[in-house]
Amino acid sequence: MQNDLIIRAARGEKTERSPVWVMRQAGRILPEYRAVRASLSGFKELVETPDLAAEVTVQPVDILGVDAAIIFSDILVIPEAMGLPYEMIKGKGPHFPKVIERASDIDALHVADGSELQYVYDAIRETRKRLDGRVPVIGFAGAPFTILCYMIEGQGSKTFSNARRWLHAYPNEAHALLEKITASTIAYLKLQVAAGVSVYQVFDSWAGVLSKSLYQEFCMPYLERIAQEVNSVPRTIFAKGAQFAMEDLMASSYNTVGLDWTMDPMQIRAMNPSKVLQGNLDPTVLYAEDEVVVQKTNEMLSSFSGGGHIANLGHGVYPDTDWRKVKLFIDTIKTSNNTNQ
Amino acid sequence: MQNDLIIRAARGEKTERSPVWVMRQAGRILPEYRAVRASLSGFKELVETPDLAAEVTVQPVDILGVDAAIIFSDILVIPEAMGLPYEMIKGKGPHFPKVIERASDIDALHVADGSELQYVYDAIRETRKRLDGRVPVIGFAGAPFTILCYMIEGQGSKTFSNARRWLHAYPNEAHALLEKITASTIAYLKLQVAAGVSVYQVFDSWAGVLSKSLYQEFCMPYLERIAQEVNSVPRTIFAKGAQFAMEDLMASSYNTVGLDWTMDPMQIRAMNPSKVLQGNLDPTVLYAEDEVVVQKTNEMLSSFSGGGHIANLGHGVYPDTDWRKVKLFIDTIKTSNNTNQ
Repeated sequence: MQNDLIIRAARGEKTERSPVWVMRQAGRILPEYRAVRASLSGFKELVETPDLAAEVTVQPVDILGVDAAIIFSDILVIPEAMGLPYEMIKGKGPHFPKVIERASDIDALHVADGSELQYVYDAIRETRKRLDGRVPVIGFAGAPFTILCYMIEGQGSKTFSNARRWLHAYPNEAHALLEKITASTIAYLKLQVAAGVSVYQVFDSWAGVLSKSLYQEFCMPYLERIAQEVNSVPRTIFAKGAQFAMEDLMASSYNTVGLDWTMDPMQIRAMNPSKVLQGNLDPTVLYAEDEVVVQKTNEMLSSFSGGGHIANLGHGVYPDTDWRKVKLFIDTIKTSNNTNQ
Repeated sequence: MQNDLIIRAARGEKTERSPVWVMRQAGRILPEYRAVRASLSGFKELVETPDLAAEVTVQPVDILGVDAAIIFSDILVIPEAMGLPYEMIKGKGPHFPKVIERASDIDALHVADGSELQYVYDAIRETRKRLDGRVPVIGFAGAPFTILCYMIEGQGSKTFSNARRWLHAYPNEAHALLEKITASTIAYLKLQVAAGVSVYQVFDSWAGVLSKSLYQEFCMPYLERIAQEVNSVPRTIFAKGAQFAMEDLMASSYNTVGLDWTMDPMQIRAMNPSKVLQGNLDPTVLYAEDEVVVQKTNEMLSSFSGGGHIANLGHGVYPDTDWRKVKLFIDTIKTSNNTNQ
């Protein structure tokens, strides 16, 4: 690997600078991505066609100069592999025609063995071929609770109140569902590792709607099982909006904990100084003038000093961001004098 | 006042039990509310007709037995009074046909002197007449940042990325807008107090999309000015999702700090034990069986022990909640053995 900075940083080694990648770096911010996407019937065709998925996965390495590629895919491939197919509706986001409405729906769900998602592993292999050792590939999956949210709600939601209802009203059924999702996710991530991802990230995108005690009951055991069973590469957990979960995550089997932009790196670092932290520039900083972007990126870097760090935004880059601002963010990190740890 | 429990609790006095009210208690959970609403052209007719607003404001006092009425209105009356009218679209929520797009739009905005919202004060007076001293009336307004969000975005949003863009890209213009909103809000709240509200709450519903430093720059000074200038009655600040702001809010001029269900009362109490805390049952607990509601309500009460407390949910009650569960929550608090402080 010509640039293995992110692997070394994720293992907790001291590196010459913070490696950098950007959540949603392969996507709508790049004109080259939009060109590929425009020729297709929809988002899923891109996800399910390994050559095309590899093409857009590599784009940000070529154009933005990130230190890692993250495979172009979606966390919703897991519900689909389990028997609940998703649709991606233009301008609206994901939608599930069929959702979990009662306990028997959970019984009917398939536990994926990972073989359902061959196109993802093919895309990973094709990406590695195209990268030819330039940078590592990051794999990913959704956290069990976040997947449960989609399986019950069938779409995004401001409150995910229906998913949360299950935790209080049908806790046993919720656990049964989380068990099935966890087993499927473990199989899936193992096959991603076998296909060649060097690091993986678990996205708990809707963690923020819970509380410390609900997180301890309905999230931590499943997250922990994933990290312990898929342990041959470094792993990252990103629980957006879940300040209340940070103590538990900082004590977990994940090497790296991702922070959103609302979180204070210093305060979280103090919970366990040996953990690597990832993040956390406010993505809306990238709407500002160049000098603001540079200044706030440098402030962000300083806020992570004193321990392991992988630079990133604190949320996926917003699709209307000018890609040149994203490049400026990346260049600022690559040329800064910060020493990781 | 026959029941002044909430006034005494809000002043920091020891009370025989925690008073209780529920965010969105006057609303869709009550069949009696839906009956009134069904006969009208829309939400705004209800807000703007004092007799009807008073009727639905009093309903939860009669039906649920809460310790206070909160005037039925909307935080969006302030942008409207300033020159940006809102619409309430069925099944979608608020929408502003005209939004703030450039600095000149801010210059064109009117600073409200409060006289634009006579229907609110009339509704407060009518409510007091109907309550005849049974319980106090709570007034409210949106926090300046939350109002700015709506004025720029024109509707709800998951990220409010456009509003946040202004804080980074056009900070001076954002401050100019916040100044105008703050002056309007102060005038409005003073007239609510003159009309007879005994307590008021400032809702910073979208605070959670910021960070500690942004909150300190773009929220705290304006919130503080409101609390200091409208100081003849006790006041509450509820900044949903803003764990990062809690230290500042607990040191602010608000008597009471509202907590959402993700926050830990003990941890926040420790920041300033003399502050009254409000909250914070997860509203989705009310979807569960009766015994779960009772158990989790009692656990919530215990979690606030050791200081002043006003019981509430940690978010507005979700509209599909069975009102009998809300009543069970309220009855559990009223019959519990907890002593406030």
